[in-house]
Amino acid sequence: MRRTPLMDQLGLTLPVIAAPMGGVTGGWLAAAVSEAGGLGIVGAGYGDLDWVRRELDEVVRRTTRPWGVGFITWSLARRPEVLDLALAYRPAVVMFSFGDPAPFVDRAHARGALVFCQVQTVAMAREAVAAGADVVVAQGTEAGGHGARRATLPLVPAVVDAVAPHPVVAAGGIADGRTLAAALVLGAQAAVVGTRLYASAEALAHPRLKQRLVEVSGDMTERTRIFDIVRGLNWPAPFTGRAVTNAFWRRWHERPEALAAAREAVAPAFEQAQAAGDPEEGLLWAGEGVDLVRAVEPAAVIVRRMAAEAEAVLAALAAPGDGGTPSA
Amino acid sequence: MRRTPLMDQLGLTLPVIAAPMGGVTGGWLAAAVSEAGGLGIVGAGYGDLDWVRRELDEVVRRTTRPWGVGFITWSLARRPEVLDLALAYRPAVVMFSFGDPAPFVDRAHARGALVFCQVQTVAMAREAVAAGADVVVAQGTEAGGHGARRATLPLVPAVVDAVAPHPVVAAGGIADGRTLAAALVLGAQAAVVGTRLYASAEALAHPRLKQRLVEVSGDMTERTRIFDIVRGLNWPAPFTGRAVTNAFWRRWHERPEALAAAREAVAPAFEQAQAAGDPEEGLLWAGEGVDLVRAVEPAAVIVRRMAAEAEAVLAALAAPGDGGTPSA
Repeated sequence: MRRTPLMDQLGLTLPVIAAPMGGVTGGWLAAAVSEAGGLGIVGAGYGDLDWVRRELDEVVRRTTRPWGVGFITWSLARRPEVLDLALAYRPAVVMFSFGDPAPFVDRAHARGALVFCQVQTVAMAREAVAAGADVVVAQGTEAGGHGARRATLPLVPAVVDAVAPHPVVAAGGIADGRTLAAALVLGAQAAVVGTRLYASAEALAHPRLKQRLVEVSGDMTERTRIFDIVRGLNWPAPFTGRAVTNAFWRRWHERPEALAAAREAVAPAFEQAQAAGDPEEGLLWAGEGVDLVRAVEPAAVIVRRMAAEAEAVLAALAAPGDGGTPSA
Repeated sequence: MRRTPLMDQLGLTLPVIAAPMGGVTGGWLAAAVSEAGGLGIVGAGYGDLDWVRRELDEVVRRTTRPWGVGFITWSLARRPEVLDLALAYRPAVVMFSFGDPAPFVDRAHARGALVFCQVQTVAMAREAVAAGADVVVAQGTEAGGHGARRATLPLVPAVVDAVAPHPVVAAGGIADGRTLAAALVLGAQAAVVGTRLYASAEALAHPRLKQRLVEVSGDMTERTRIFDIVRGLNWPAPFTGRAVTNAFWRRWHERPEALAAAREAVAPAFEQAQAAGDPEEGLLWAGEGVDLVRAVEPAAVIVRRMAAEAEAVLAALAAPGDGGTPSA
């Protein structure tokens, strides 16, 4: 399998990037993926300075290979100091998702970071390049957690064509060797993996929630705003979060206004359930690729197997058949 | 590129299937795709006997290669006689979409047809096999026209695993060589192509509508019920239709109940716009792959180029790079 130019630029041996899952991709998971030859991106989430400092201490302690840090851009706009904190650790990559990255791109470039901007439409991809993105991450609606409505398979090649010669990375639904190979075939130079790495030993998440990912089907995930509402987070349109449907979801998903009105009464039990790793009364983000999650494993095992299987799938399909080639 | 077992079984030289777009995939388009080495499936739509008879006369006049006929299953249940009419033409493939195929599978098998069942979730895939499907078509939400909510990229491998050893075909978002190659990499044995073939010379659609597909982006498509409501079609849940957003959509998409109430007054102008090929006041189904539609061309040119480009993409990726393999 040919290395992509982006892999060469970053010195990666695997075309796999650990998604910056807020609060979940800490220094341990990010470093594990970077040490395996991919790129780990710590998820700075809503910008808790103590958490970010602790996890970036951890990532630089655990790896000397390239790693990154990812921000929720609309949240960063309210707490821009977390970007300066992160840049002091000299990340190879800074990733901005969900909002206008223009105010932050120059600062990241000034510290030598490669800037990834995650987008959900072709129009957003053009805006990201105009704002100074080095790499565009095209994220499909099948992704777990926050995202929007277009699907990965047709979005990635459309973005590749729209922003060429900028490199494009795929995100959303990539959870095994087949989906990784598909991302590369679509023109992506690497793939962002979230849900599959949530179910890793190194992810900062409750073991009950990781195990729940092994049990559920992608049929059971939905995009919703209710988990943002109960947490008091005012996410801008068009972003919603894909989560595993559960008792909490069934109770509220058709009544978001009622949930907003009842938030003060409802939030304590939700937060308690969340802390206890209760998959029915708390929140479990998951993408549609969760069908392909079959065990909680070390991150290095996951990403190495994904790459090896992708390579095998591509080699098998490229081999000539007995009857000649389909296009002959 | 290796031929898939399903291609061998059907005698295809291209892994491309023309979607049974109701009223659009007639005998001319279906035969053109079959003659090019793929499989054309006439779209019987809502079961207009005169239309089906005319188009099946046309397909058997134009090709001696395998072809198919596709039904909207919940509609067929109301007019089952159209299945008997179609089976008299000896289609190689009968495809059932959107509803329970169980009452019809035996009749198709009795006339020697291979039965394709199109599904939108992993659970539906298991039901299709239980109902007697020979081949499962896993359709993602990015597809134009009717469909549901799961996305092609993670759905296809999950369905492959769920129904093995039954062959799986991918549908939704497949509109060029990259997306076709991705479908094969995901484990599909062929891909159903709709929107890209709507923009073909042979499609039974107004030239203005075909040209509109060249102009629009997948960013401009949405799933909606309003075009079924204005046509008086009571589609069952969970199916919606993906269409190009236009003036009609902007006027009604947030007020489906109001449209239902106003239908008698609104429908005549809608139907007139539709007949005139007015893309703003009529209906234009399109999938998210429409970004990849760059010209209206003969179907044979489209499908042969898709297969050749898919082969080239796979060959390029499978080739070893200078620096060794990513998984090494």
